[in-house]
Amino acid sequence: MVSQTFTFRPVGIIHSCFKEKFGIPRQARLVPDAAARVEILKPFDRDEAFKGLEQFSHIWVVFVFHVGTRDEWKPTVRPPRLGGNKRVGVFGTRSGFRPNPIGISAVELVGILREHGTLYLDIRGIDMLDKTPVLDIKPYLPYADSVDGAIGGFAPERPVVALKVDFTPQALATCKAIEKKIKGFKQLIIQILQNDPRPAYYDISREKKDFGFRIHDVDVKWRVENSRAVVIAIDPYPTADISSV
Amino acid sequence: MVSQTFTFRPVGIIHSCFKEKFGIPRQARLVPDAAARVEILKPFDRDEAFKGLEQFSHIWVVFVFHVGTRDEWKPTVRPPRLGGNKRVGVFGTRSGFRPNPIGISAVELVGILREHGTLYLDIRGIDMLDKTPVLDIKPYLPYADSVDGAIGGFAPERPVVALKVDFTPQALATCKAIEKKIKGFKQLIIQILQNDPRPAYYDISREKKDFGFRIHDVDVKWRVENSRAVVIAIDPYPTADISSV
Repeated sequence: MVSQTFTFRPVGIIHSCFKEKFGIPRQARLVPDAAARVEILKPFDRDEAFKGLEQFSHIWVVFVFHVGTRDEWKPTVRPPRLGGNKRVGVFGTRSGFRPNPIGISAVELVGILREHGTLYLDIRGIDMLDKTPVLDIKPYLPYADSVDGAIGGFAPERPVVALKVDFTPQALATCKAIEKKIKGFKQLIIQILQNDPRPAYYDISREKKDFGFRIHDVDVKWRVENSRAVVIAIDPYPTADISSV
Repeated sequence: MVSQTFTFRPVGIIHSCFKEKFGIPRQARLVPDAAARVEILKPFDRDEAFKGLEQFSHIWVVFVFHVGTRDEWKPTVRPPRLGGNKRVGVFGTRSGFRPNPIGISAVELVGILREHGTLYLDIRGIDMLDKTPVLDIKPYLPYADSVDGAIGGFAPERPVVALKVDFTPQALATCKAIEKKIKGFKQLIIQILQNDPRPAYYDISREKKDFGFRIHDVDVKWRVENSRAVVIAIDPYPTADISSV
């Protein structure tokens, strides 16, 4: 028993706006407008397998941290929440660098739909990378999953939304153009930057560094000036493959 | 990617008072006094891997439903919550009979301790069978995991605690004797029976049937009379192997 292993196959795959790890919210629901589709894979894509799920406002997505995780586990990690320079035990964090790289995220269930024969779950408030393999979908049960008075250790509360967000005129114009294709795009960028996705180990006194993250099929360039995030440019991403799985 | 599988090895194993499925609470924390130990397996049993976890009041146990699950999945199940006679989609429930039999339970973390060289997590409010393999331990993050205003579909609230619990004089005497060895034993039995563990498909108008469930190293015999659960006898379980893993 103890030495037994367990093998699972994906029941779905995430199509997310987040194409790289940088910029991804550090927990689910920190960026409410971050949307994704879970494509349900065959043979699990049967309507009756999801019957009743539509009655729930939120679901658990059980997934695999599939990028950047190592075969070899390390007992401690440096969570961004602690400034990226303090080590805590991997089982004391939600880091993806864990012995079994399984993640769980409570996200909003927007809808269940079928398009061109494929079954999808539309979800919001995600913190998953594009192409993340999904092992399970479960309803969120408020009475079992929402623990009144739980004490959250070194992450007792939602991180403070620290940054105001500005756009250069050029970036704003691009943003408005993108809005025609991707509704709510500007609001999404604002929500991501409000959460200050700079690496935790980055010395925030060195404010002039430019950052960029890839979202949908564009590259968002920004920097922090006077404690405000300024979006400098939004460019097409060189090798956009947004439509591929 | 899509056809890839993922193999995980247990990081721990549950030592639970529940030795069989019958009697197990249907969700975590329905029976607050149901306690268990998670034995952390080598090579994951390093103190520093759990550093910081002790600051959290609750943890997620990610586990494998290891008994009674089938290799072949079925798209629908009949959850006890709906009386056991209505079918809903497996992904719309928390049933263990799912394509990837992974469970998640938010439980109270009582303590982290080392005994005779083995590292254990003491937890309460469990709904796991003895010898359940544990794939992961994560801190419960209130701000991410507790969803305000989530709507719980066909299980919107904690099930109503329906049954009052009585003991025959003989059962009560046995109970008191067991209390000397297992503190809180009587309260545990009461909490389990309050939740009415009768099979959902059981016709409750036929009240005279006797039930039994194995807990710790005893067999608890009970029946329902006039809407009260009556504990008739508590006997040693014939082949008790409580101390084995």
